[in-house]
Amino acid sequence: MIRRNSERTSFAKEMFGGPGVMKASQILNADEFCGKGRLFNHVVLEPGAGVGLHRHKNDFEVYYLLKGTATYNDNGKEVEVGPGDVMVCPDGEEHSIVNTGTTDVEIIALILFS
Amino acid sequence: MIRRNSERTSFAKEMFGGPGVMKASQILNADEFCGKGRLFNHVVLEPGAGVGLHRHKNDFEVYYLLKGTATYNDNGKEVEVGPGDVMVCPDGEEHSIVNTGTTDVEIIALILFS
Repeated sequence: MIRRNSERTSFAKEMFGGPGVMKASQILNADEFCGKGRLFNHVVLEPGAGVGLHRHKNDFEVYYLLKGTATYNDNGKEVEVGPGDVMVCPDGEEHSIVNTGTTDVEIIALILFS
Repeated sequence: MIRRNSERTSFAKEMFGGPGVMKASQILNADEFCGKGRLFNHVVLEPGAGVGLHRHKNDFEVYYLLKGTATYNDNGKEVEVGPGDVMVCPDGEEHSIVNTGTTDVEIIALILFS
């Protein structure tokens, strides 16, 4: 099955009270995980935009940073991250991310059930 | 948990008799899926390189094409794919991909259990 880029579902929304909006386009739709997860998105954060602090329950999330520079909050500890860095938020833990650079941040986000 | 780009596992190997080698760097390692999958990689195929035809059994694979142009074989049907296109090979089906362009192809590959 091939889904063309133009056929993918995209949206922009404020996330967990984070600054600005998160722009996302779905790689898989929620019913395409064979029950193993619920989110696989290509995310864009413009400078200053971010995803607010939130805790994961019954699932875990992976951010894979493709482009840009961001500040990642890993259970209260803030760290600067860049291209190629991988951030994992296990079940029960919390995280947030903000684009603190001057160019767009691009992330692949994956949420699987734990 | 943060894994820096420099700490990620990378490798290059021939895949299923495909031309050339596939270069890949792991986003998650095999023991980090909470049992839901087994592969989440950033893949690079140089011009002419590809992953040979293979059938999935007890899992399914998603390719998300970030850069470049490739020919994707979807159960025997060849289709040209480009940036932003999503290719899903469900359990029991077969696929292959070859970089038929002049620049590197970059793919995010995800295998979850079905």
